Amino acid sequence: MSAQSFHQAPHKLLLIPGPVEVTDEVLFANAHPSVSHMSAEFVSAFGDSLRMTREVVYSKDAQPFLISGSGTLGWDQVSSNLVEAGENALVLNTGYFGESFADCLRTYGANVDQIKAELGTTVSLKEVEKALQAKKYKIVTITHVDTSTAVLSNPKAVAEVVRRVSPDTLVILDAVCAVASEEIRMDDWSIDVVVSASQKGLGAPPGLSVVVASQKALQVAAARSTPVSSYYASWKRWLPIMTAYEKGSAAYFATPPVNLIFAFNQSLTQIVKGSSSLEERFKLHADASNRLKAAAKELGLKQLAADPSIAANGMTALWCPPGVKSSELLPLFLKKGVVIAGGLGAEKDNYFRIGHMGTTVANAERGDVERIIAVLKEVIAEATSKSA
Amino acid sequence: MSAQSFHQAPHKLLLIPGPVEVTDEVLFANAHPSVSHMSAEFVSAFGDSLRMTREVVYSKDAQPFLISGSGTLGWDQVSSNLVEAGENALVLNTGYFGESFADCLRTYGANVDQIKAELGTTVSLKEVEKALQAKKYKIVTITHVDTSTAVLSNPKAVAEVVRRVSPDTLVILDAVCAVASEEIRMDDWSIDVVVSASQKGLGAPPGLSVVVASQKALQVAAARSTPVSSYYASWKRWLPIMTAYEKGSAAYFATPPVNLIFAFNQSLTQIVKGSSSLEERFKLHADASNRLKAAAKELGLKQLAADPSIAANGMTALWCPPGVKSSELLPLFLKKGVVIAGGLGAEKDNYFRIGHMGTTVANAERGDVERIIAVLKEVIAEATSKSA
Repeated sequence: MSAQSFHQAPHKLLLIPGPVEVTDEVLFANAHPSVSHMSAEFVSAFGDSLRMTREVVYSKDAQPFLISGSGTLGWDQVSSNLVEAGENALVLNTGYFGESFADCLRTYGANVDQIKAELGTTVSLKEVEKALQAKKYKIVTITHVDTSTAVLSNPKAVAEVVRRVSPDTLVILDAVCAVASEEIRMDDWSIDVVVSASQKGLGAPPGLSVVVASQKALQVAAARSTPVSSYYASWKRWLPIMTAYEKGSAAYFATPPVNLIFAFNQSLTQIVKGSSSLEERFKLHADASNRLKAAAKELGLKQLAADPSIAANGMTALWCPPGVKSSELLPLFLKKGVVIAGGLGAEKDNYFRIGHMGTTVANAERGDVERIIAVLKEVIAEATSKSA
Repeated sequence: MSAQSFHQAPHKLLLIPGPVEVTDEVLFANAHPSVSHMSAEFVSAFGDSLRMTREVVYSKDAQPFLISGSGTLGWDQVSSNLVEAGENALVLNTGYFGESFADCLRTYGANVDQIKAELGTTVSLKEVEKALQAKKYKIVTITHVDTSTAVLSNPKAVAEVVRRVSPDTLVILDAVCAVASEEIRMDDWSIDVVVSASQKGLGAPPGLSVVVASQKALQVAAARSTPVSSYYASWKRWLPIMTAYEKGSAAYFATPPVNLIFAFNQSLTQIVKGSSSLEERFKLHADASNRLKAAAKELGLKQLAADPSIAANGMTALWCPPGVKSSELLPLFLKKGVVIAGGLGAEKDNYFRIGHMGTTVANAERGDVERIIAVLKEVIAEATSKSA
């Protein structure tokens, strides 16, 4: 049994906005025989994963936290380490996931203000500036790509406003659906925390919370006047563990998800040290996205994103044709061997979502993009002929 | 590629007290191609996993929570859902993990009292009774097997005392290193919460927090006067998800660890529906443990557990021979292809730990138990001849 001889079982093509298709090598690594979390082999894989995670967000010295958990756990990390009870948080809400991040912040005692964008749009920079002038905020959160709408925010521009108007405010980027499919230059853009997860652009199975914190964010957490309000999400407890593994020795707080770290390490290796550069990888995502969006437009389908400049490159959200529900479309895709997602929230029946991240766009020989475009055409033809 | 044709790569025999050796079928399931967390196939696997988890602890109606995370997350679930700030918790401390559970409880505002057993012993029932008579406790926690010492507590006897003296107090069993290797009759013994994880007796890779809560515990959580103090660990948020999946439909709070659930489901199937019954499985653990402990005794090695009646069946902790450090023993085991663990805590250099859970004891044809006994003899002979 070797990575070369391993081929995953035949299955329907998974094109939801996460989990996504992963490579054979990643799945093979996930089937790594049991090894100790203290073993040299694991220490090396964990250390390399930390270093490569930093590379993916173009940071020199930010601190990655790789912790067993869903992406959601990243919100708990931000809320419990960076915000003390009674402090103010500003959430730039571009969909379902902004709403939920606000819920999480409130759970840990934050006073949360939200600027809610109209469905399909982003929050205007002027409104952000006005809010920052009116009140002192400990953090501002941005959803880079809201998985519910495929709307793409501009974290660079928001961070510029924050730095200018309220330099102490920490900029938190919820990039669960953006890391490795959208460019994120953490240091250059002055982002303090990037929150992500393993199962989207990062190309591994779900189960790993991936958070990267700037040195400034770590200092803010260390300078709290009240204790960190979570145990499992406490950076104080995890920081020595991450530091030890990166330096080449094991340390224990809670058992890491050993197999998933091997899988994540394999995916990061393909992303960071593969045949194409990170820049080329972003371009592959943009190209695939443009082709799919153009095909959708030709079919008369409208995106949720009101403007092409705020449409995500790793996923597409499309309104259903008139008179058709997403619950009718999904089974038609499924019959053709492709799995896509319905909507989320109040309009969930009226739109559908297609994910195009990771190996689906990075490895053209798979033909995934051609296939989804062809199937989309067939399905829309079928659905509209029925409803007509 | 099929489960039958999958054979895991050659590797050193992993005999630490978790993670443990897992079967080929479990690893193959962990390499399941990506599927949606909303797909019929996954819904069925998740639902069955919930039902089988309940079976493993002999409960009719307790509620399992299967959440992406380390075993440690179970402590956060207990601390943030069941204890309100200022309420009292009594921790029966039989080692490192009792100490840490107390830390976690304090993080969420509990007033924690501990009854600390001498190293290698359990807490006396009389002391538990005295403590319960002196003060009203919201919860009592028991570490079933403390992974740092291999000391086995008697949850049935403790729960009897609690029910008699303080019937409202919830009995929390930290069974991370006990579920599926030690008998736990949750309903019969009146245990309110069983906390566990995937990577020990449950025979899957690490990364899944496995908690089972009685209906009484759920009612106590629901009757809180203050909000639940964690977001990610909140039962209020997860309960509708677990209920939906068990009833056969998908629901979303955070993305579940899809592949690991397939692996966990496979392991549970082997445990619950395999050729031997659950009772037989416990006997296989006891038999293997007795053989190893007898061999150690013949070699003049003493267990940390002061008495055979309080020695775990899934692991063994042994004092090093005089003049030998555990850090000298581990490499000798490693040279012979076997991975064991050193000690934990103040005495960590002076003892070592061997795990014997899951397929290592359940599948005799592997010969793992014979191998570890043979290697133990060789290593002790080498180490003592060197130090003599």
